[in-house]
Amino acid sequence: MRIIVLGADGYLGWPTALHLSARDHHVVAADSLVRRRWDRDCGTHSLVPIRTMERRVARWRAESGRDIAWRRTDVCDPVALRTLIAQTEPDAVVHFAEQRSAPYSMISDRHAVETQVNNVVGTLNLIFALRDVAPRCHLIKLGTMGEYGTPNIDIEEGWIEIEHLGRRDRLPYPKQAGSIYHLSKVHDSHNIEFACRAFGLRATDLNQGVVYGIDTEETRLHRELDTRFDYDGIWGTVLNRFCTEAAVGHPLTVYGEGGQTRGFLDIRDTVRCVELAALHPADPGEFRVFNQFTQQFSVLELAERVRDARAALDLDTTIEHLPNPRVEKEVHYYNARHQRLLDLGLAPHNLEDTLIDHIIERVERRRHRVRRELIAPTVTWRGGEQRFAGAVPSDERRRVMRLVGRAAARRTASTRVG
Amino acid sequence: MRIIVLGADGYLGWPTALHLSARDHHVVAADSLVRRRWDRDCGTHSLVPIRTMERRVARWRAESGRDIAWRRTDVCDPVALRTLIAQTEPDAVVHFAEQRSAPYSMISDRHAVETQVNNVVGTLNLIFALRDVAPRCHLIKLGTMGEYGTPNIDIEEGWIEIEHLGRRDRLPYPKQAGSIYHLSKVHDSHNIEFACRAFGLRATDLNQGVVYGIDTEETRLHRELDTRFDYDGIWGTVLNRFCTEAAVGHPLTVYGEGGQTRGFLDIRDTVRCVELAALHPADPGEFRVFNQFTQQFSVLELAERVRDARAALDLDTTIEHLPNPRVEKEVHYYNARHQRLLDLGLAPHNLEDTLIDHIIERVERRRHRVRRELIAPTVTWRGGEQRFAGAVPSDERRRVMRLVGRAAARRTASTRVG
Repeated sequence: MRIIVLGADGYLGWPTALHLSARDHHVVAADSLVRRRWDRDCGTHSLVPIRTMERRVARWRAESGRDIAWRRTDVCDPVALRTLIAQTEPDAVVHFAEQRSAPYSMISDRHAVETQVNNVVGTLNLIFALRDVAPRCHLIKLGTMGEYGTPNIDIEEGWIEIEHLGRRDRLPYPKQAGSIYHLSKVHDSHNIEFACRAFGLRATDLNQGVVYGIDTEETRLHRELDTRFDYDGIWGTVLNRFCTEAAVGHPLTVYGEGGQTRGFLDIRDTVRCVELAALHPADPGEFRVFNQFTQQFSVLELAERVRDARAALDLDTTIEHLPNPRVEKEVHYYNARHQRLLDLGLAPHNLEDTLIDHIIERVERRRHRVRRELIAPTVTWRGGEQRFAGAVPSDERRRVMRLVGRAAARRTASTRVG
Repeated sequence: MRIIVLGADGYLGWPTALHLSARDHHVVAADSLVRRRWDRDCGTHSLVPIRTMERRVARWRAESGRDIAWRRTDVCDPVALRTLIAQTEPDAVVHFAEQRSAPYSMISDRHAVETQVNNVVGTLNLIFALRDVAPRCHLIKLGTMGEYGTPNIDIEEGWIEIEHLGRRDRLPYPKQAGSIYHLSKVHDSHNIEFACRAFGLRATDLNQGVVYGIDTEETRLHRELDTRFDYDGIWGTVLNRFCTEAAVGHPLTVYGEGGQTRGFLDIRDTVRCVELAALHPADPGEFRVFNQFTQQFSVLELAERVRDARAALDLDTTIEHLPNPRVEKEVHYYNARHQRLLDLGLAPHNLEDTLIDHIIERVERRRHRVRRELIAPTVTWRGGEQRFAGAVPSDERRRVMRLVGRAAARRTASTRVG
């Protein structure tokens, strides 16, 4: 199959491009490289050093004999995206190209706007480009389990059969996302569902859980194929952060009580799920949702798993409860369906102590690169990040605001053409 | 009360500002005037001539002895919006300031992006400004009944009690909007619901039906107080368009079979509903939804009402079914709750032949201004507007794309500040 991977420079996009290429798909890897800029803006970094995309695809060719075509492309640029699709004539487009951090989206109003504009506009551009130049192409979109929130009823895969006052319908599952970032994915889901209904597009929304892990079969081939690994308070997902904390002897930082329960999966299952979706496309006009995770855990359970794995090696690890920077339920019902990818043949990698040991071992090799001051959460849901906070704009805030304001004015002016 | 009306230059924003001012509220009217630019871009115009905002508020002062403060403000400019709110210290903000045409949003990918960016960013800016400078202010947001689509179960007011596999929860009502515009309001609703939950804001989402009518008690006082009136294929709402067609002897243009059923209300009820919401604010942290319409009709029923009102005056009117430019069900179940505004005291103006006669009579006075070529729909859901259509970009399309692309690049560059 001919497959475009949008967002191929990211934690999951790069291993996905490799996985698909290794299985003889023709892969075009596209990215704007904005994630590297966000690292510079936030003062964060990948614990595992990552190479340029040029270096990565050259190394992949050397190791595997296979070609991945690399295209620097911003999905927010409609001409560039349309051109990429017209030239590639893909069977499937895998869309990872979104700002994916909840804390980043909550830093300030500017970050909230940037997140939703980046994510919603990229997906809108994609929908319209597919309508006009590749209407039979299968759109595989990375959503998030966080779109659902924590309802007091079971979570279904995207759609729910509702009986109400004696009548029935199958309707989109209600959404109550927990951050501006998660909301951007809710918006995408609604836009894509419409595109399937109105334009006849075929789409799979992969509502993914929290991913953990540091490598895949393909990235392990050479250190120049490594994917990024985040452990900080903005970009680090919870289990990867716990493993980093364990590796450097930092307490495992649980936000609040830790009863927050979510779906999780191994990075090796992410890449496999995407390929399964591609091999079994949605029908024309179908908006299909898969809940892409393999196991449910509470945050505290995960911390205990890491602590126990360390104890088995006679290492002492403490768990520390921090005031929760987020607004979320810390004790709640959670039971989410995740059957459809299993039906397509997914054989899950369940979380084992050996995997935890492996992540920690790989982090330990890089422990000199861990900057402990980046671990603590700096962004609160009610107040944003300190340097952007305050009812009265600081000079810094005023400067940022003026820039965003001017950008808005330019945007308005530039769309004035009839 | 101190009330800011955002979008005060629009069809409903201006009469709302007048209505609130007439009832002794302190009103600040704000608008970017972008609606007038969209008219120029689309080659459309208000059938009823409208004055500048400066002239309107001066006339209102002369007629009523009351002051409305006029502020030219773009809600997409976060500094300007924040400053307006900080200076006004409002009890309520009424938010009409959005692109409100479904056909406009479907002209091309550029119009789709412009609509969702304009609407979503304005509302995000408002949410964060309220959080930081006026957290007790009541946000009154204009949503649309079109957010719900046409489900096969009864439509509730924003929330629905769901029983599923033996458990229960009250969840946001599932949304299946019918255009990129309607989707932008779905996105707003999700963002605002989150803001109530995470920031403790108080908000009322007025899911409004299709509005008809040409004037209110206050706009009638002087022709310089007139509000705009649209009859064309992009901006004209259905009953106003039928009345215009009747006035100039044009067939009444029903899209498809005409079984499309929607909620409708008189413009005089719109202004009253907004005031009722303001007088009875939501609680802190509450996201409240009112379905703001008074009667359900199918499009064909409305055409027949207009035809019958004309027949009573011995005037012959024909009904013409056009191929439906939209993608929507033309025969469907529809039953939507609209109790909460009645509970607050709304006394509806039901649709009467005399109101239809009144609209037609006022249009007849301006019949020399009606441009018949603007009546037919020019935008299709599957193909956009002809001059923007085609898989391979035309020169015009390429030029537009480049401009939007450059705007995206500038936006990216301008948010680079740390």
